[in-house]
Amino acid sequence: MSFSVHILGSGAALPTGRRQPTSQYINCNERHILIDCGEGTQQQLRNYGIKLQRIAHICISHLHGDHFFGLPGLLSTMHLLGRDKKLSIYGPAGLENLIRAFLEAGGHPLTFDIQFQVVDPSVQTCVFEDNLIRIEAFALKHRIPTFGYRILEKEKPRHLIQEAIQEAGLLIEDYHKLKAGLDIERDGRIYKNADFTLAAKKPLSYAFCSDTKAVESYLPAISGTTLLYHEATFTEQHKERAKVTFHSTAAQAAQQAQNANCTYLLLGHFSSRYADETQHVIEAKAIHNKVLAATDGLLIDLEKIARYF
Amino acid sequence: MSFSVHILGSGAALPTGRRQPTSQYINCNERHILIDCGEGTQQQLRNYGIKLQRIAHICISHLHGDHFFGLPGLLSTMHLLGRDKKLSIYGPAGLENLIRAFLEAGGHPLTFDIQFQVVDPSVQTCVFEDNLIRIEAFALKHRIPTFGYRILEKEKPRHLIQEAIQEAGLLIEDYHKLKAGLDIERDGRIYKNADFTLAAKKPLSYAFCSDTKAVESYLPAISGTTLLYHEATFTEQHKERAKVTFHSTAAQAAQQAQNANCTYLLLGHFSSRYADETQHVIEAKAIHNKVLAATDGLLIDLEKIARYF
Repeated sequence: MSFSVHILGSGAALPTGRRQPTSQYINCNERHILIDCGEGTQQQLRNYGIKLQRIAHICISHLHGDHFFGLPGLLSTMHLLGRDKKLSIYGPAGLENLIRAFLEAGGHPLTFDIQFQVVDPSVQTCVFEDNLIRIEAFALKHRIPTFGYRILEKEKPRHLIQEAIQEAGLLIEDYHKLKAGLDIERDGRIYKNADFTLAAKKPLSYAFCSDTKAVESYLPAISGTTLLYHEATFTEQHKERAKVTFHSTAAQAAQQAQNANCTYLLLGHFSSRYADETQHVIEAKAIHNKVLAATDGLLIDLEKIARYF
Repeated sequence: MSFSVHILGSGAALPTGRRQPTSQYINCNERHILIDCGEGTQQQLRNYGIKLQRIAHICISHLHGDHFFGLPGLLSTMHLLGRDKKLSIYGPAGLENLIRAFLEAGGHPLTFDIQFQVVDPSVQTCVFEDNLIRIEAFALKHRIPTFGYRILEKEKPRHLIQEAIQEAGLLIEDYHKLKAGLDIERDGRIYKNADFTLAAKKPLSYAFCSDTKAVESYLPAISGTTLLYHEATFTEQHKERAKVTFHSTAAQAAQQAQNANCTYLLLGHFSSRYADETQHVIEAKAIHNKVLAATDGLLIDLEKIARYF
């Protein structure tokens, strides 16, 4: 099992020499997900040696250019490399028409199917689910319709204690029930699950909130998340600017993480006006004790997340 | 006076670690022109220290992604940096609608005016002209409507020989006629222009042909050009592939340069299947004696062009 977050771009609207526009690549139990796709994302995937044809899901937060202008190029490249596997794209209304218009201008149909799914801004939605993971979308509060996303591992089956099972004479057909946490009843006797299994590791989760004003409405959607990526475009010095532009300060991001009981906080989407993010981290750490500033190329293994903070 | 060509991207449809998709920045007598704008062009402009707000003209060849997917991002960045100067964009029908749709999705009007000019594929057109330069567009032969562009310096005024002028007692009001190459008539006497002026340097010119099959139809439009950039997607080994995809081999590009009497030939738009462009140059040099392979970052000063070849 694996759960990693690879930051491809941690900058805001204006790309700089150090920070590309927003994009992140998530591998959750071999489900490969891209969140946002700013201009140059395909080049960043190449720079970091990520196999782009593995991506099966693309989550787009909103239609500001620094979050989706790289999508036509990425899809073109997937096409040129002969992709035949379906791709799912989740995002705001209007995205499909824009992307199809750009691709169709080239005059050739894609070699693969894209399934666009418009996210409903009025409710928290599950956009994808299988036996191992779940991807949820929820509304943020920005100048145009904008979504956050959360990726969660499913509860894992309990680990079997083989020695105890063999000693008690339990059978292979009991394994499924035991892994699911159920007791076994045989010949009038109850075999208590706790004697034959160990709890699996707690499922991990990752949430992405960018761009947004720090408001209460999306706290339930990120409640208890292991790692929260939250935009921190500004420091407190530019709090007024954050308010006007529907962005967050680092302190506000930390307060959201604190209120939603998120264990770790990763800050990003830093305005290009700051030479570095030291001040952002200082201000956030005054409120939340596990804070890190994202950098382009940062790869976080959630199974070992304590190492990074 | 100045005339330089800066290659921002010399690759074909698939960007690689070495080659970005097509874009070039031309400074012709302080008229700043971008030809094509593949994804990542704004980052390449930044990488090479080019002031993007200086660009006043953007020429787009065609609507394949590797030639225009960087345009929305570049325009957004110009907007975010507070541009107020008008921008002219020349290109195929349909470009304006695509770009405006992408920009309008972000929900804010641009801070500057864009004047889109649809190029007529049926005739050779002058899309811009002032006292110093001229930009011409002409049809190439690709799978979708595609244009080449030529940028020409205007004839420069003749240089005055001040000593001879003063000795003959010619007047300041004669200068204009002398610079224009005319004789002066005064008191029945003819002052021959050639005795009082020297010829100015021959005007330089640059032509861009990508993407295209090598056909006769555009030879008149590039005839006698100082420097021709011609696509050379393939080597002779893949001649059949060039034919099917409406591209050129390096040898075909050289034959076009030779037939159109272009002094220097710059090859580009190399397919990502080639590890290097040695074979392209060998094949082209068998036909034309002044050949260079473009690389990303190559900056050619046309006033000193002999140095590069």
